[in-house]
Amino acid sequence: MVDLSGIRKAKKRIEPYIHKTPVLTSSSLDEMTETKLYFKCENFQRSGSFKIRGATNAVLQLTSKQLEKGVVTASSGNHGAALSMAVSRLGITPKIVMPTNTAKIKIDNVKRNGGEIIWCEPNQVSREKVLNNILEKTKSVLIHPYNDQRIIEGQGTVALEFLDQLPDLDVIITPVSGGGLISGIICSVKNINEKIEIYGAEPKEADDAFRSLEIGTIQTNKFTNTICDGLRAQIGTLTFPIIKNKVSGILTVEEEEIIDSMKLIWETMKIIVEPSCAITLAAVFNNKNMFKGMKVGLVISGGNVDLENLPWEN
Amino acid sequence: MVDLSGIRKAKKRIEPYIHKTPVLTSSSLDEMTETKLYFKCENFQRSGSFKIRGATNAVLQLTSKQLEKGVVTASSGNHGAALSMAVSRLGITPKIVMPTNTAKIKIDNVKRNGGEIIWCEPNQVSREKVLNNILEKTKSVLIHPYNDQRIIEGQGTVALEFLDQLPDLDVIITPVSGGGLISGIICSVKNINEKIEIYGAEPKEADDAFRSLEIGTIQTNKFTNTICDGLRAQIGTLTFPIIKNKVSGILTVEEEEIIDSMKLIWETMKIIVEPSCAITLAAVFNNKNMFKGMKVGLVISGGNVDLENLPWEN
Repeated sequence: MVDLSGIRKAKKRIEPYIHKTPVLTSSSLDEMTETKLYFKCENFQRSGSFKIRGATNAVLQLTSKQLEKGVVTASSGNHGAALSMAVSRLGITPKIVMPTNTAKIKIDNVKRNGGEIIWCEPNQVSREKVLNNILEKTKSVLIHPYNDQRIIEGQGTVALEFLDQLPDLDVIITPVSGGGLISGIICSVKNINEKIEIYGAEPKEADDAFRSLEIGTIQTNKFTNTICDGLRAQIGTLTFPIIKNKVSGILTVEEEEIIDSMKLIWETMKIIVEPSCAITLAAVFNNKNMFKGMKVGLVISGGNVDLENLPWEN
Repeated sequence: MVDLSGIRKAKKRIEPYIHKTPVLTSSSLDEMTETKLYFKCENFQRSGSFKIRGATNAVLQLTSKQLEKGVVTASSGNHGAALSMAVSRLGITPKIVMPTNTAKIKIDNVKRNGGEIIWCEPNQVSREKVLNNILEKTKSVLIHPYNDQRIIEGQGTVALEFLDQLPDLDVIITPVSGGGLISGIICSVKNINEKIEIYGAEPKEADDAFRSLEIGTIQTNKFTNTICDGLRAQIGTLTFPIIKNKVSGILTVEEEEIIDSMKLIWETMKIIVEPSCAITLAAVFNNKNMFKGMKVGLVISGGNVDLENLPWEN
């Protein structure tokens, strides 16, 4: 079971290998939203996203025997690059199963961080077939992107750090996809200060968490036609019960609102953030009355954007 | 005469109105350049560039009589927006003379910061005619973008702050255009630690400072066909003698190298910087042997980039 003590241990374990990321503010965006916003900038994190926290926490708990057999994951996104960084530091090349239609920047990130890409067709069946093939043949260890206690505990450290920097937040809004990040944050924050409300932000185009919460059981994504390439995964069996129990709500956002918020952050704050976390600001704009006057922490989960494929006219 | 005590006074004067900007580092870029790089991030400064330092320092020294008559400048760039911010804070609308071909983002920045734009044709003759017309008719005060002691002293405060944060730099590389920034930096740094070398970085396409230094007298720009819209001005009569006396060199850079360095900073550091300061990193790449193993401070002068007009394919 994920608990505060496990997250505290994770923090100690991974501290030498990650950055303590800064919290930025913007008086212009405060004025526009009528809140006090605090941006926890994991876009400045090693590997370009918070994913290095969970990946490092998991990898550091592998035995040398497990490491010998190799490490594998399926990820078309930031987890693949983070796991590559965490594993290759130990002199081992992890295998990352990626669909052939993966964005160039994510491919480059895995390669640059020392991962070996194993291609699969861009569908669930092919991915699992390729992955299982590797697992059977090599007996290597699977490090799942989110449905893994070590990953959830690692991601939860972002909130420990955030509360160290800003103990008196009223609200934290974080992107939700497979749920590793938000459930880690819930397990740390709610055990430190129960009054802090945690919201998930999710694209309307991939709203499985929202619908799962409404219905009470895990629902699948009917489509994932969202610009948020980090938010297309399916909520997990380990993460959903945590979210269901303690989240204050899942706020869904339209594509256009996500792009507008992303551009606004780039323009006013001069930082590069992915659509997958710009969604948190969009969620504030969409719910201005709810957050008015509050101290709102936004988890800026990553900054790995393909600069040659921006969602606006150049 | 610009001196350290004047710059120290400027620092005290403007401190309540500006940000203390952070210094960022990047292990990837350190590895690539074989140096230790320190990025002084004035792209996070109020108004989006260091120009608010000089503008604030100048405006705060105006008498109420002068302010009543109004404030005017000619600037198609960051000085116009900064002056607008510094003046409109006092309830006064400054007049900013801008050529009709100014980039949309710079127009928007002046408007958003409360300036009134007075259009001129995009040439020196028209600009001076329009400017002189206003000065004669209104008797308002001209705040020149760089050839003004108050401006130079204001810009010099960036180096006081930088040395507070990092006293043991070996080198500072700063963009050079009209020379307000570099001469302010020279006057502060050389009076604190003479051993720190100051270099200017300048586009080959607007290399008046480089040629002026070579020949020993002020040379005009033969062309200014550079992407660095902040580096097209002519070196000033107040700034050139300071530069000539103490600069270690002017490093000229090709357009393509500037764009490559800009993209590299965006990709690895996840911050938005103008080409006009990405040029400092390009200057390091161009002179790797000279800076090898050194602690090199780069002045990241601004982050006002038109996101819909980026110098690469989208």
